[in-house]
Amino acid sequence: MSLSRAVSLSRDLIRCPSVTPADAGALDVVERELKAAGFETHRLIFTEPGTPDVDNLFAKIGAGAPHLVFAGHTDVVPAGDVARWSSAPFAGEIVDGRLVGRGASDMKGAIGAFMAAALSYVARHGAPKGTISFLITGDEEGPSINGTVKMLDWARARGEKFDHAIVGEPTNVSALGDTIKIGRRGSLNGKIRVIGKQGHVAYPHRADNPVPAIARIVSALSSYEFDRGTAHFDPTNLEVSSIDVGNPAVNVIPGEARAQFNVRFNDAWTLETLRARIAAVVEEAAGAARVELEFLPSNAVSFLTEPGAFTALVSDAVTAVTGRTPELSTSGGTSDARFITRDCPVVEFGLTNETIHAVDENARVADIEALAAVYERILEAYFSG
Amino acid sequence: MSLSRAVSLSRDLIRCPSVTPADAGALDVVERELKAAGFETHRLIFTEPGTPDVDNLFAKIGAGAPHLVFAGHTDVVPAGDVARWSSAPFAGEIVDGRLVGRGASDMKGAIGAFMAAALSYVARHGAPKGTISFLITGDEEGPSINGTVKMLDWARARGEKFDHAIVGEPTNVSALGDTIKIGRRGSLNGKIRVIGKQGHVAYPHRADNPVPAIARIVSALSSYEFDRGTAHFDPTNLEVSSIDVGNPAVNVIPGEARAQFNVRFNDAWTLETLRARIAAVVEEAAGAARVELEFLPSNAVSFLTEPGAFTALVSDAVTAVTGRTPELSTSGGTSDARFITRDCPVVEFGLTNETIHAVDENARVADIEALAAVYERILEAYFSG
Ligand SMILES: [Zn+2]
Ligand SMILES: [Zn+2]
Repeated sequence: MSLSRAVSLSRDLIRCPSVTPADAGALDVVERELKAAGFETHRLIFTEPGTPDVDNLFAKIGAGAPHLVFAGHTDVVPAGDVARWSSAPFAGEIVDGRLVGRGASDMKGAIGAFMAAALSYVARHGAPKGTISFLITGDEEGPSINGTVKMLDWARARGEKFDHAIVGEPTNVSALGDTIKIGRRGSLNGKIRVIGKQGHVAYPHRADNPVPAIARIVSALSSYEFDRGTAHFDPTNLEVSSIDVGNPAVNVIPGEARAQFNVRFNDAWTLETLRARIAAVVEEAAGAARVELEFLPSNAVSFLTEPGAFTALVSDAVTAVTGRTPELSTSGGTSDARFITRDCPVVEFGLTNETIHAVDENARVADIEALAAVYERILEAYFSG
Repeated sequence: MSLSRAVSLSRDLIRCPSVTPADAGALDVVERELKAAGFETHRLIFTEPGTPDVDNLFAKIGAGAPHLVFAGHTDVVPAGDVARWSSAPFAGEIVDGRLVGRGASDMKGAIGAFMAAALSYVARHGAPKGTISFLITGDEEGPSINGTVKMLDWARARGEKFDHAIVGEPTNVSALGDTIKIGRRGSLNGKIRVIGKQGHVAYPHRADNPVPAIARIVSALSSYEFDRGTAHFDPTNLEVSSIDVGNPAVNVIPGEARAQFNVRFNDAWTLETLRARIAAVVEEAAGAARVELEFLPSNAVSFLTEPGAFTALVSDAVTAVTGRTPELSTSGGTSDARFITRDCPVVEFGLTNETIHAVDENARVADIEALAAVYERILEAYFSG
């Protein structure tokens, strides 16, 4: 059986065990193929004390506007319990019409598909009237410090001007074509500490139990309605992910209680207004209790690419290939798209996210091929004007 | 300086490092002195699989009614950080008019005082018209299984019939004579577990966060008014002593949350009615959440010795010696008095509880002597009728 270029490139990438922050040859695969097709390529290793060094790739063909950048990541999450995989996680075997391996859907399959689309476009048209580029990082599943953010700084400094971006994250829920992401909610983490006074349960007036206060605060935060959603976003949602006292003694009133929470917030909020509202809810629920509220540093603000000509171009390409009319969604987690949105409008479209980060991650061979066809239609439409 | 008998006996007891369940010769001190004064003595070692063997002492003089039993314990809690003591915890040194040592107040000083009182009474009157007995255990600070409960069973089986009991626990708050205990609240421990479904904070509809439910339940229990107190008791009080999730990942919704609580309850409740009420509060607060409520086994029900002739006799003796009118209290923790109350009315009176279980535990020498005087007045009044 002969594999399509999109599938064989995806498999080549899976065979590099690029568990973040390792590259393991993955970027070489991308660079080699693009260079051979006439792309100018740049390898950029970014470093920062306390974080792993990360290898990144920028490649471009053509010049000037319009400039369409394809952004993605070759790093993957660990395979987990290898014994539970039905085939080796970095073998890239094809089983029952599916390419199996860590990163198949998130997002080596999408990189293989975009490469195949770009190579095919260039083979047929030569360099575009404008620019096609690849911005590929090895730091999306890691701390996201030495990757996309620094790549964009570097590109801006050398005069690259992006007009539109496609991010190849696995956006589809159950079938290729069901979902395009046009934005993402922001994410904010926080910690709460209630300081009481330790004592014996038989003498509660000599102590100050922090547990009722943390329970009140957690109840208040968990039931608070931040908003009812906005035009393109689900309601802002807060989840308290842990409460911890760690007191093994049933007869002892503890001296301290802690909780941690995460908020996924929409475009009704900035980090500043959200922090202020949370502080107000905590303060009211705390009553007389002594409470410390700490927010962790966050650069995951919400963003939105308003539906318009560019989202329609992507959506039409998806419909033409898959027969589906994709939902324009802003739900789910964060992605590096949040960084690119500062430079230009971003749309995310890739494979399905059913098996990402799980044992036996895989992508349908037919989906990878269809995705390559979608991307090539996008290139045709984008550079036809 | 020559020590009073009460103080020298207390010191002899402190010099036996009888950290529960060790006896370290403490009961030998008591037995030897009482036997020499004509008491009949019995040493009783009780055992039970999974618990330490415990040495106990029963001693009596006289026969028949009225029978006044003095109950107490020679075991002590550990010394803790010995380096923080200003004199060795088992040396029984006298510093600035205070006998310093683990157990000085809880409750070797009271045992020394009662021994001195009984020996003095017998020296002056011979055997009482009735019975004076000692019921001394080495298992009050431990699991309380091989001590007072089994001693009482044993005594009942051999035909002992107690009319009244004095327990020598340190009842006074800041000055000898300020407090007699005529009852104790009961104690009940419970655990709560909320079972949810683990997931990612960005996809809360696919998960079921147990944290809001445990917070609601803890809030409901912590603010629930069980009662407003009864004639002789403070209000029933519930303290949640821990909430634990143990989820280090801020982006993960946990699958389970736990809490533990203790209730100190008055005579408006039995264990059964209290358990039922707590279950109702938990169920209402739980809403649709899946909750498990478990009560730990408890034999600490509340008890009360109604104020009357016996409490007046004790109170009058306290006032005659100390000049204070003691409060008849039911506050604070539990004691072995809760077991004796099934056989006869019990009053507790001993030293002050300011330094018990702490570094540099001590008792004023003058207080030990005054306590012996109180006990001797009680014996005089009790057997004068
Ligand atoms: Zn990804
Ligand atoms: Zn005690």
